[in-house]
Amino acid sequence: MSRGYFSDIPKIEFKGPESSDPFSYQYYDKDRVVLGKTMEEHLRFAVCYWHSFCWDGFDIFGAGTFERPWQAGELDQEAAEHKLDEAFDFISKLGVPFFCFHDVDVMAAAATPQEHVKNLSVMVDKIEDKMGETGIKLLWGTANLFSHPRYMAGGATNPDPEVAAYAAMQVRNALEATHRLKGENYVLWGGREGYDCALNTAIGHELDQLGRFLNMVVEHKHKIGFKGTVLIEPKPHEPTKHQYDVDVATVYGFLKRYGLEDEVKVNVEANHATLAGHSFEHEIQLANDLGVFGSVDLNRGDPQNGWDTDQFPNDLREITLAVYYILQGGGFETGGFNFDAKVRRQSVDAEDLCHGHVGAIDLTARALLNAAAMIEDGALERFVEDRYAGWKSGVGAKMLSGDLDLAGLADYAVDNNIAPVRKSGRQEYLENYVTRFTK
Amino acid sequence: MSRGYFSDIPKIEFKGPESSDPFSYQYYDKDRVVLGKTMEEHLRFAVCYWHSFCWDGFDIFGAGTFERPWQAGELDQEAAEHKLDEAFDFISKLGVPFFCFHDVDVMAAAATPQEHVKNLSVMVDKIEDKMGETGIKLLWGTANLFSHPRYMAGGATNPDPEVAAYAAMQVRNALEATHRLKGENYVLWGGREGYDCALNTAIGHELDQLGRFLNMVVEHKHKIGFKGTVLIEPKPHEPTKHQYDVDVATVYGFLKRYGLEDEVKVNVEANHATLAGHSFEHEIQLANDLGVFGSVDLNRGDPQNGWDTDQFPNDLREITLAVYYILQGGGFETGGFNFDAKVRRQSVDAEDLCHGHVGAIDLTARALLNAAAMIEDGALERFVEDRYAGWKSGVGAKMLSGDLDLAGLADYAVDNNIAPVRKSGRQEYLENYVTRFTK
Amino acid sequence: MSRGYFSDIPKIEFKGPESSDPFSYQYYDKDRVVLGKTMEEHLRFAVCYWHSFCWDGFDIFGAGTFERPWQAGELDQEAAEHKLDEAFDFISKLGVPFFCFHDVDVMAAAATPQEHVKNLSVMVDKIEDKMGETGIKLLWGTANLFSHPRYMAGGATNPDPEVAAYAAMQVRNALEATHRLKGENYVLWGGREGYDCALNTAIGHELDQLGRFLNMVVEHKHKIGFKGTVLIEPKPHEPTKHQYDVDVATVYGFLKRYGLEDEVKVNVEANHATLAGHSFEHEIQLANDLGVFGSVDLNRGDPQNGWDTDQFPNDLREITLAVYYILQGGGFETGGFNFDAKVRRQSVDAEDLCHGHVGAIDLTARALLNAAAMIEDGALERFVEDRYAGWKSGVGAKMLSGDLDLAGLADYAVDNNIAPVRKSGRQEYLENYVTRFTK
Amino acid sequence: MSRGYFSDIPKIEFKGPESSDPFSYQYYDKDRVVLGKTMEEHLRFAVCYWHSFCWDGFDIFGAGTFERPWQAGELDQEAAEHKLDEAFDFISKLGVPFFCFHDVDVMAAAATPQEHVKNLSVMVDKIEDKMGETGIKLLWGTANLFSHPRYMAGGATNPDPEVAAYAAMQVRNALEATHRLKGENYVLWGGREGYDCALNTAIGHELDQLGRFLNMVVEHKHKIGFKGTVLIEPKPHEPTKHQYDVDVATVYGFLKRYGLEDEVKVNVEANHATLAGHSFEHEIQLANDLGVFGSVDLNRGDPQNGWDTDQFPNDLREITLAVYYILQGGGFETGGFNFDAKVRRQSVDAEDLCHGHVGAIDLTARALLNAAAMIEDGALERFVEDRYAGWKSGVGAKMLSGDLDLAGLADYAVDNNIAPVRKSGRQEYLENYVTRFTK
Ligand SMILES: [Co+2]
Ligand SMILES: [Co+2]
Ligand SMILES: [Co+2]
Ligand SMILES: [Co+2]
Ligand SMILES: [Co+2]
Ligand SMILES: [Co+2]
Ligand SMILES: [Co+2]
Ligand SMILES: [Co+2]
Repeated sequence: MSRGYFSDIPKIEFKGPESSDPFSYQYYDKDRVVLGKTMEEHLRFAVCYWHSFCWDGFDIFGAGTFERPWQAGELDQEAAEHKLDEAFDFISKLGVPFFCFHDVDVMAAAATPQEHVKNLSVMVDKIEDKMGETGIKLLWGTANLFSHPRYMAGGATNPDPEVAAYAAMQVRNALEATHRLKGENYVLWGGREGYDCALNTAIGHELDQLGRFLNMVVEHKHKIGFKGTVLIEPKPHEPTKHQYDVDVATVYGFLKRYGLEDEVKVNVEANHATLAGHSFEHEIQLANDLGVFGSVDLNRGDPQNGWDTDQFPNDLREITLAVYYILQGGGFETGGFNFDAKVRRQSVDAEDLCHGHVGAIDLTARALLNAAAMIEDGALERFVEDRYAGWKSGVGAKMLSGDLDLAGLADYAVDNNIAPVRKSGRQEYLENYVTRFTK
Repeated sequence: MSRGYFSDIPKIEFKGPESSDPFSYQYYDKDRVVLGKTMEEHLRFAVCYWHSFCWDGFDIFGAGTFERPWQAGELDQEAAEHKLDEAFDFISKLGVPFFCFHDVDVMAAAATPQEHVKNLSVMVDKIEDKMGETGIKLLWGTANLFSHPRYMAGGATNPDPEVAAYAAMQVRNALEATHRLKGENYVLWGGREGYDCALNTAIGHELDQLGRFLNMVVEHKHKIGFKGTVLIEPKPHEPTKHQYDVDVATVYGFLKRYGLEDEVKVNVEANHATLAGHSFEHEIQLANDLGVFGSVDLNRGDPQNGWDTDQFPNDLREITLAVYYILQGGGFETGGFNFDAKVRRQSVDAEDLCHGHVGAIDLTARALLNAAAMIEDGALERFVEDRYAGWKSGVGAKMLSGDLDLAGLADYAVDNNIAPVRKSGRQEYLENYVTRFTK
Repeated sequence: MSRGYFSDIPKIEFKGPESSDPFSYQYYDKDRVVLGKTMEEHLRFAVCYWHSFCWDGFDIFGAGTFERPWQAGELDQEAAEHKLDEAFDFISKLGVPFFCFHDVDVMAAAATPQEHVKNLSVMVDKIEDKMGETGIKLLWGTANLFSHPRYMAGGATNPDPEVAAYAAMQVRNALEATHRLKGENYVLWGGREGYDCALNTAIGHELDQLGRFLNMVVEHKHKIGFKGTVLIEPKPHEPTKHQYDVDVATVYGFLKRYGLEDEVKVNVEANHATLAGHSFEHEIQLANDLGVFGSVDLNRGDPQNGWDTDQFPNDLREITLAVYYILQGGGFETGGFNFDAKVRRQSVDAEDLCHGHVGAIDLTARALLNAAAMIEDGALERFVEDRYAGWKSGVGAKMLSGDLDLAGLADYAVDNNIAPVRKSGRQEYLENYVTRFTK
Repeated sequence: MSRGYFSDIPKIEFKGPESSDPFSYQYYDKDRVVLGKTMEEHLRFAVCYWHSFCWDGFDIFGAGTFERPWQAGELDQEAAEHKLDEAFDFISKLGVPFFCFHDVDVMAAAATPQEHVKNLSVMVDKIEDKMGETGIKLLWGTANLFSHPRYMAGGATNPDPEVAAYAAMQVRNALEATHRLKGENYVLWGGREGYDCALNTAIGHELDQLGRFLNMVVEHKHKIGFKGTVLIEPKPHEPTKHQYDVDVATVYGFLKRYGLEDEVKVNVEANHATLAGHSFEHEIQLANDLGVFGSVDLNRGDPQNGWDTDQFPNDLREITLAVYYILQGGGFETGGFNFDAKVRRQSVDAEDLCHGHVGAIDLTARALLNAAAMIEDGALERFVEDRYAGWKSGVGAKMLSGDLDLAGLADYAVDNNIAPVRKSGRQEYLENYVTRFTK
């Protein structure tokens, strides 16, 4: 590559909190040790291929605005390689350790299964080389089962099993590619696994299709010896009226139903959390408590717009709490922070892609410092422990252990004619506490 | 009762579709046989005690407007009996077979557990008498674990086990009262089982409290020989920021987690469905397909307002589809249509309460006729069956049965270089079909 | 055109309410007289060019699914003519009197202003011929100031006046084309007139740009002798974070600010009403009462999805009320019902486009019969009149006429120590009334 | 008052950013000069009477939880005086300069107009004394036209003019009390001025009632020589289905319609902004640009709950932007930051009320420092100016001045065959800039 698209973007370096250089990190000092690990080890940032290198800026009311050179013509082998060069150049400049991709993001367009297998295979070799050259690793791979018209009525949940077979072909190859590239996770996002119209949909049948399909994926993972984590990414709707993987709780119930709760974890996306009516940190807390927390797609939605805007995060308080609960849950194992975020359609320059990522990386690093300070301080954790301390003994403990049944517990209330004392939840105090640490 | 509050309300009779008498039924002819059962047997209507006889018309910005005579002073034994007389007079005039109640709806206010037990017990005798006199039956009973300040941080999920003991006392007594009154179901609605603030909440601990509590309820039900169904009523939020029983899928996952999926079913409320981001009929379909459909709280929300408005239903298309899917699932067993609906705050007269119920009853009866016609026609059901017919043989059947693994299914796609054919979902055709039957 | 895309679609005829032929009208009998006018004269249906003939079924997560023959290659002159032939064939089969279009919908793609002028001009001749042949008339024309990347930051409200000049060129030509084709209205929809990010936006400056631009349009209309109505179509957001023409009330304030309230009216879209937090009928009522009601884009949104789904309407109650209030306001003058609606992405066949329109046309015709019956009955209108009758005399009348000031009215209250009587709003009764007429 | 409810709350003092004392200010140093004015002068904080001293913690699903001593019995004269003592004790401890009140907040309950006038009058004397003693001033007064059942169908917009007369009595007395207490503004919030049901509502008639009523208020203000500002507080809905004062743009249109745009300004509430689908800062920017910005009700909503939660603000970025735009608009004249915020229902202690206010005051002071730094830096303002610089000359300037008409501007585009250049909106860069200043 002679003069690339990102040539004018400098390597982004840590310059400290006083820096006002927009092409520097104020907080992300990757080797800085926080709570016993480096920032890089904690945060495990990944750049996503699709929004950053494949999307051309189109939206439902207008055509692409970006004019990236590799998007000028057909997505053939040459364009795929051009894109790969630019992508790894950009990620290298950011200095983040990981990337993520869908099969169709990286390869030349394919019209048939056989072409798909071939075109993907060629690019996996190229990607492997690039990874070797740059040291950039794969956080996760996935298969795109939503963009092609064949998937208009779903992949695994399609009324036509031929489409499920096509999906199986893509997933098998994407999973094997991920394995070969030493990916740390494999993700499934069911953008078309749901329905547009309940009238023509056998919901139970489709759930069974999906449950069987996911079991097949897990079996194949074990067969090929892939040690990474299989992840489902919840979202309530959009593109469809309704998606089956609504939120963390729904996915948990689905996994239980199909015997997969020990095999599969969730990839929590901030914007999908809020679309589902939950705060981002709620979904992380719940995933922790249900034992299914895996990884994060970091971005933000617009609280006044009702669709998936996938903006870069900029809410320091929200990300501070997200990191706090991730650390509370033990931190990432195979997961990481993938920026499933796109610059706005008016942000047409190479540098805009840089601003989006630099701002998000720095915000998250700053959030890590805040969260670590809260953990070291410990007051929030202690508050919660104290609040539930009553359950460690007495009737509380007996109820939980099964030593008291309903009648026994009711009798306790009547015999003692109890009068529970109201105790403040101290919400405002705790919110102020978090505000104090959000800096 | 000499001259009651509802004295001017006539007994509501069926007068046929041409009637323009607002105090008559145009469609609800309770003995009319539809698909082999009477309308009364299909629809199993219930009037709820709380909205109709306890609520005084207050809202968060203003005081009560209704001035029902029994609400004039304290809720003592006399007022409780006055309310009972009026309630059964009203339900009798509507001619519906069931009612539903919370413990505190029917009894004199109690300040302690011992008073609670006594005050409820006295009224259970009175209710039993009334039921005998009028023939009105109990669809379900429940305990109110949300109105008293002691429950501000939850009942079973309270950080203080004393409060859980209080809740156990109420549930035990409400369940036993329901059993004695031959109630067909017992409902739990967790209005405060959730959180206002995640910072002070141990979500996993609270879920375990709730899981254990629900197991205790089920064990007690069996112990006392109650044959009715235990039901959970999902709702995503309000009063709290977040409730644990978000929607049908979430409740299903909760039941699976605590081993209760064969013991407990759901009471689907229309307004709670839409607050959770689902259509009402979606929640019914999903509950059917997950095997947990139990009963319905019939009402409607306001699609432009974001809280639980609990209005009387008036969307014939929506209720037609709801009844259609209930019939598809086999119809109600122990469940029924409970009107968890309240007249608007400006509807201050006795007759307004009548208009609300008559309109809703008639709408649902009309929906039953529509749904029955759709079932007899059979085209919708056939369309869905045909759409998934491909899964009955070939690779589809093999995938579902486990005879094909991921690699096998992928190989099928590659070896045959398959090209699935796009097939219309015919959404507009099917919507028009439903429109034609909505009359 | 030898064998066209819609060849298998029959001419849609009125067959009466008992017909179950999906390719017939059950209610739309265009020459049937209702309240003194034919259905055709009342309803003034229009088919829109963009959704029906230009959109290829793509969405933000996937490529086009429709494969209309005229969409196979570039949008050159040949494709534009092919599209025109098919469009008029389809509209003719529906038997509706009008169509609507954006400049870029009908013409070959143009890369420069000069090409734009030429390409549009060529097609205006062709359209004129088609209109002559078929008798189909133009309800309104408009210019697309949102799809091309140049408009990413707005048309008239762009920070760059060159873009406003480009917009002026398009609007001038679209307005003149509309005039030549005897269009009855000219519409402006400001999909990009708003902002994605308030940080980089001078809201007041942009409003002034838009106010001046709209004045220029109105001046030009008068200069060229166009007698049709200029219409603004409100929408709160999407594609942008925020659009300036949020809803009817906002547009009214904008018109007042720039002295245009007697010159410009609104084109109310059902889906935009609900996105803005209002019911569809609210927006019609308000537009009537503010004197700015013009025309309607008929469609529906999804109450659980937060974006503009532009589905075909299927809610008989909603459309009955919409037609009722339109009739109450005197009916359409130059406006009409334009179907700004698109079939779902899975509805890939020619017949699906037909089902969408036939269902919507029939629903609206049925709504007209319902609304007319309500008007003939008159009870709803009388109820409202009676409710406000107190304002026709006494202190009410004096307050409105200015004969009483605040102190005078307050004195009246104190001197008489008044105690206003609570009077029921009878909401449930009125809702039942509407239900009875919704058939 | 011997030992008051707030006795254990210390006087809140400024202790600097390193303080971890929750009963201190880290940022609010009232005499600190920022951009030429003290923090106190810039921020003009007010404590509201209603949420802090009148609300007992009830919500729609449960009874009051707070047990403030003055709420134990009836709201008689003694209770009103007790409340006043405690309120001013609390406000004094916070050290903020202002308070706000509704008539019924401060007075003994009144059953008739004559009692109302007397009871309010007695308390105005007491308040005046308290203000003299403490130095606390009145930011604004208002009349509560929504809580009493008589207002269930509106105050000024009631179908019954007797109710409007009652409202006039309250407003006249509240306005005169505000005048006597040297209040700096008078507010109208139309919580019931709207409708629950459009079927029974003559929207246009009600708007005329409201327009005339507001004119009467303005006339009376001038008559009595009140120099403060009359303010309307927008809100889209809740308690009603629809309120007439939806948002800033709607209120502006209303003021223009009734000739009041130079007489009345808006009181922007954060939570009402987001309920209306706008960001808080949008409403401030728009009010500035329309010339109607007056004052602020500071609080926050819950982005996942659809009702007015009126929580204390805790989003530093949001408040930084709000203060930035207020300063850009010249800062407050008669307005200020009123905390229309309530502690959560579980926050039952006196100290919780303190935490809520201290956190909010400190957050806003911190936001002031951030906003001032952004203003001193000037980069954001310059960016916007540069972005629109093209409109200062050439065709842009001619279009705005009226020197170019539509044809002229269109000709310019065609004659020069213009090709506008795409220019990045730099949204991510600007967001990062704001993030950098949010500290
Ligand atoms: Co994602
Ligand atoms: Co997303
Ligand atoms: Co319910
Ligand atoms: Co409800
Ligand atoms: Co439209
Ligand atoms: Co639309
Ligand atoms: Co307010
Ligand atoms: Co509020």
